[in-house]
Amino acid sequence: MSLLQTVKVLGLGAIALGLSGELLGWLQRRLRPARARPLNEVLFFPSEPACMEHLLMPHAQYRCSCPLSHDVETSFSRLLRHLLSASNTLDLCVFSFSNMDLSRAVLTLHKRGLTIRVLTDQPFTKMTGSQIGVLRKAGICVRVDYDAVHMHHKFAVVDGRRLITGSLNWTLQAVQSNKENILVTEEPDLVRPFVQEFQKLWDSSDPAKHCVPPC
Amino acid sequence: MSLLQTVKVLGLGAIALGLSGELLGWLQRRLRPARARPLNEVLFFPSEPACMEHLLMPHAQYRCSCPLSHDVETSFSRLLRHLLSASNTLDLCVFSFSNMDLSRAVLTLHKRGLTIRVLTDQPFTKMTGSQIGVLRKAGICVRVDYDAVHMHHKFAVVDGRRLITGSLNWTLQAVQSNKENILVTEEPDLVRPFVQEFQKLWDSSDPAKHCVPPC
Repeated sequence: MSLLQTVKVLGLGAIALGLSGELLGWLQRRLRPARARPLNEVLFFPSEPACMEHLLMPHAQYRCSCPLSHDVETSFSRLLRHLLSASNTLDLCVFSFSNMDLSRAVLTLHKRGLTIRVLTDQPFTKMTGSQIGVLRKAGICVRVDYDAVHMHHKFAVVDGRRLITGSLNWTLQAVQSNKENILVTEEPDLVRPFVQEFQKLWDSSDPAKHCVPPC
Repeated sequence: MSLLQTVKVLGLGAIALGLSGELLGWLQRRLRPARARPLNEVLFFPSEPACMEHLLMPHAQYRCSCPLSHDVETSFSRLLRHLLSASNTLDLCVFSFSNMDLSRAVLTLHKRGLTIRVLTDQPFTKMTGSQIGVLRKAGICVRVDYDAVHMHHKFAVVDGRRLITGSLNWTLQAVQSNKENILVTEEPDLVRPFVQEFQKLWDSSDPAKHCVPPC
């Protein structure tokens, strides 16, 4: 090969290399947003009434015959799906907890063997319909905030990376009647502070550190 | 210039072009995240007690001499700063509104000529300390949700692009005593649904469309 041909090949090779690099970079930039964009979803309530049995008993043999709509996607079914998506841990920090479907979702996760921690405010634990006793009896680790002021949070962290938070208390009225909101996000800048705050509140509610009434 | 030299120049030019393209692309990718990353901030309460006069009366001649800490950044001062950052509009959708500092912030924005809309739940409008009457008397457009169920939201949208939402009711107790959270975000996927929900609730609370008690 003559020198002229060698230089030609080198020149064309460099052009091809440059163009390939550009093409690869462009493809990488086009594909990245779709893969890396964190989950962000907003749910508004009241939720349309619908049957949730297909989510809470997905392996049941019978088909629910209640008069509610079936297999309809609602704000509440989305909320349940996000909770039931947990595969490892669920940290729950709720002011009041009396919604039986949400309780069933937590119990389902417990039966699957997930590590579940529930932190709640004292005044609501003994109210009619509270699910806190049900969770405790099932063996779920529950801690109670006995401070005189309200522990008014209503958030959950799924697998340490999916935050579910908003105005919605975990009651039937909040889901079926009130105007409420829930944000579901995997944005690390929003999730991280809630993970840290949960741990702080969990540690400060350790019954071994405090005199729990009656004492 | 001989053919050999021409080809050499072309070859080297192509290499330079390819490398420059790569370099520019790399620089673009390095700089983009810093510029395009949307605001995401989490505030936890109770907020440390501190004087807010420097935010609410920034042009006052006197220096506040109250016994509280001054010029300290707290969750509440961050919340006030986000509200006071409004330059065009403020849409406010709050279950209860009795916090006087938050009321002063809204009145400050009103005096600056911003377009403010306040939507609130009926039962709390007549409670002692409610700021709804104060805002109305100042000429701020207020609508009331008279539905029997609760309008339990507690969110604000600043300039149609910054969402402030969480568990925190706009009361003194929520700010100073309770364990609460506030998210501040400019993530479009989170802000957009709240902008739409506000407009929907605002339209449905138009007094011209409804029989407002007493009627």
